[in-house]
Amino acid sequence: MIRSICGVGGVTCSGIKEGKFGLALIKAEGTFAGVFTKNLVKAAPVVLMEERLREGSLGAVMVNSGCANAYTGKQGYDDAVEMSAIGAECLGIDEKEVGIASTGVIGRYLDLPLIRRQCQEVSRQLGRDEESETMTARAIMTTDTFEKHALVQAQGFSVGGICKGSGMIAPNMGTMIACLYTDAEVGRKDLKEALRQATKRSFNRVVVDGDTSTNDIALLVATGENGKVRQKDFCVALEDCCRQLAVQIATDGEGATKLLEVTVRGAGDEEAAARVARTIIGSPLVKTAIYGEDPNWGRIIAAAGRAGVSFDPSRVTLFMGGEKADLPVFRKGEIVVDLDKAKASMAGRKVTVDLDLRSGKKKATAWGCDLTEKYVEINGRYTT
Amino acid sequence: MIRSICGVGGVTCSGIKEGKFGLALIKAEGTFAGVFTKNLVKAAPVVLMEERLREGSLGAVMVNSGCANAYTGKQGYDDAVEMSAIGAECLGIDEKEVGIASTGVIGRYLDLPLIRRQCQEVSRQLGRDEESETMTARAIMTTDTFEKHALVQAQGFSVGGICKGSGMIAPNMGTMIACLYTDAEVGRKDLKEALRQATKRSFNRVVVDGDTSTNDIALLVATGENGKVRQKDFCVALEDCCRQLAVQIATDGEGATKLLEVTVRGAGDEEAAARVARTIIGSPLVKTAIYGEDPNWGRIIAAAGRAGVSFDPSRVTLFMGGEKADLPVFRKGEIVVDLDKAKASMAGRKVTVDLDLRSGKKKATAWGCDLTEKYVEINGRYTT
Repeated sequence: MIRSICGVGGVTCSGIKEGKFGLALIKAEGTFAGVFTKNLVKAAPVVLMEERLREGSLGAVMVNSGCANAYTGKQGYDDAVEMSAIGAECLGIDEKEVGIASTGVIGRYLDLPLIRRQCQEVSRQLGRDEESETMTARAIMTTDTFEKHALVQAQGFSVGGICKGSGMIAPNMGTMIACLYTDAEVGRKDLKEALRQATKRSFNRVVVDGDTSTNDIALLVATGENGKVRQKDFCVALEDCCRQLAVQIATDGEGATKLLEVTVRGAGDEEAAARVARTIIGSPLVKTAIYGEDPNWGRIIAAAGRAGVSFDPSRVTLFMGGEKADLPVFRKGEIVVDLDKAKASMAGRKVTVDLDLRSGKKKATAWGCDLTEKYVEINGRYTT
Repeated sequence: MIRSICGVGGVTCSGIKEGKFGLALIKAEGTFAGVFTKNLVKAAPVVLMEERLREGSLGAVMVNSGCANAYTGKQGYDDAVEMSAIGAECLGIDEKEVGIASTGVIGRYLDLPLIRRQCQEVSRQLGRDEESETMTARAIMTTDTFEKHALVQAQGFSVGGICKGSGMIAPNMGTMIACLYTDAEVGRKDLKEALRQATKRSFNRVVVDGDTSTNDIALLVATGENGKVRQKDFCVALEDCCRQLAVQIATDGEGATKLLEVTVRGAGDEEAAARVARTIIGSPLVKTAIYGEDPNWGRIIAAAGRAGVSFDPSRVTLFMGGEKADLPVFRKGEIVVDLDKAKASMAGRKVTVDLDLRSGKKKATAWGCDLTEKYVEINGRYTT
């Protein structure tokens, strides 16, 4: 079953993964938009892509895993240009038409001979089927444990994407690598605005560990194969696609055993709601309590209280639960929780929290995961 | 050997710890100053003490552990008043003269009968010796693994303090409970200013997990027994005392095996340096790398890059080491690290990092600890 980019008209792809080192190649001509990390330390491919965004169109996207090509100075930048030239050569297109991204260890140089060999191999295997998109999604994985796909089929057009992301995940742009495609015909300006909005409500609402990567990048290419569509319909489909991918990143948080979904409502504006939701999602104490199935809800309200958003703690209402947050914890500041039931509700793979600040009408949802011994193990020995 | 508050003229104290529930009582008359959590959700004792700060003097301080009396509404506030009344009754002083603080689980009510019984017991055992101050420091511990003491003996006066703090530690005021005493005679305004400044450079520079407690409080009482001193001398001694306590909190971070000391220099102003230092200290990826003795220095520069402080990543210089940061990692953006030596330097109980932003002349130091499986274990099952 086609699950992502191969469901979008005009896209072919392939990928290879050899130990820690992988390469994905996606061929699709079209208008493009991108969003990039807000970290001051930007990886070379991010710097290059920000420059190339001005060109406005792409013929292919190439992503390597295993080396982030970040904090590598002038050589890193030259290597990034060379990487795109390798892709261009293999596909017979202009190097400025090749979008690139990198993910892996920071402070190491790209292995260009390896990238050349891998690129030559995958460029001969470009396909438009389930195996091709699976290999492509797998090629960009680092500590991810599963490939991440999403495909939204709307009236007359599709939006599909793959992404990677498991650690160094915090809300400051894309916080991962995402390659998004649509066969709708969308102008550059509309494409950019749609991506900005969809990213804000999806990838920027995921926190695994609060660390913002140097390599975050989300690229969106519109091939235009299926013609023009209503901008509103396109925005809805794109946001849906990004949200599906974002939830997969949260689910696959390093060492995670549970998905945590936090909705904050009753806020004065959406950003305030998002800020509180992200603070709860990012709290190590909330995350460890979720892991231990410990209904220590005081940590949720304590995290909300340090989010920098004004509300009256004595008026709020908190619900929690498994698939649905249907168990009252406190209502207008009064503790009403049944601790045994609360504990039981945390036993599954998903824990939901619903906090009503009762100080407005806006809401936002954020996604994260629990913090486990496995996260410590994965990250204690990453480069060695 | 007297190690903290019993070295300060005019102080007697005692403490009791029964399982998770402890009570400390410190008797010392004097002018007082306090700093409190900036969390919007303030525990009842914090609210009460903020009110009583206006009185300007204290006769005793009473701290219970096991229950935070936070998010307990009107009843919690009444309970806090009653707790101070119990202390007043036992000591034969006015209830407004009794400072209180609480630490433990959020969302539970105080066990007042227990507090009354414990207070009656400790009030009969007030002493001025090593055992008394040790029992007092032990009584306020929660997940702490050792008592925290500091005593600074200056020309003609002393400053001593005890504190507790191990988890839910983040820089937003005191982030723990500290009881500080001096026998210098200091006016209210000077006392307040000295405490604000010392706190900023000590307790506010400690991050264990980024969670800001609802119960943070630092109280400073000047008994005046040794007469007037120069304000500058007092500030230096107080800051020294607070720094010693802050380092002990970092060392005793929940599950910690290593102390992490990060100095950021070459910043435009001290707060910018502190912000970068705290971001590095707070990064789960840096913390797990320290734990694993993995010289993955890219995470240090990536954390610095998301601190919200402007600098040129290509100009910075990074050193790291054990007791001293004497091993060059990169110089003006060029990677010069010997990874084997870097790894070896991380083997001890302390890891130091020295980052020069080369964009100014100010510096700041922050303290934290590694992130281990033990932190997850401790916090996954805190209330159960």
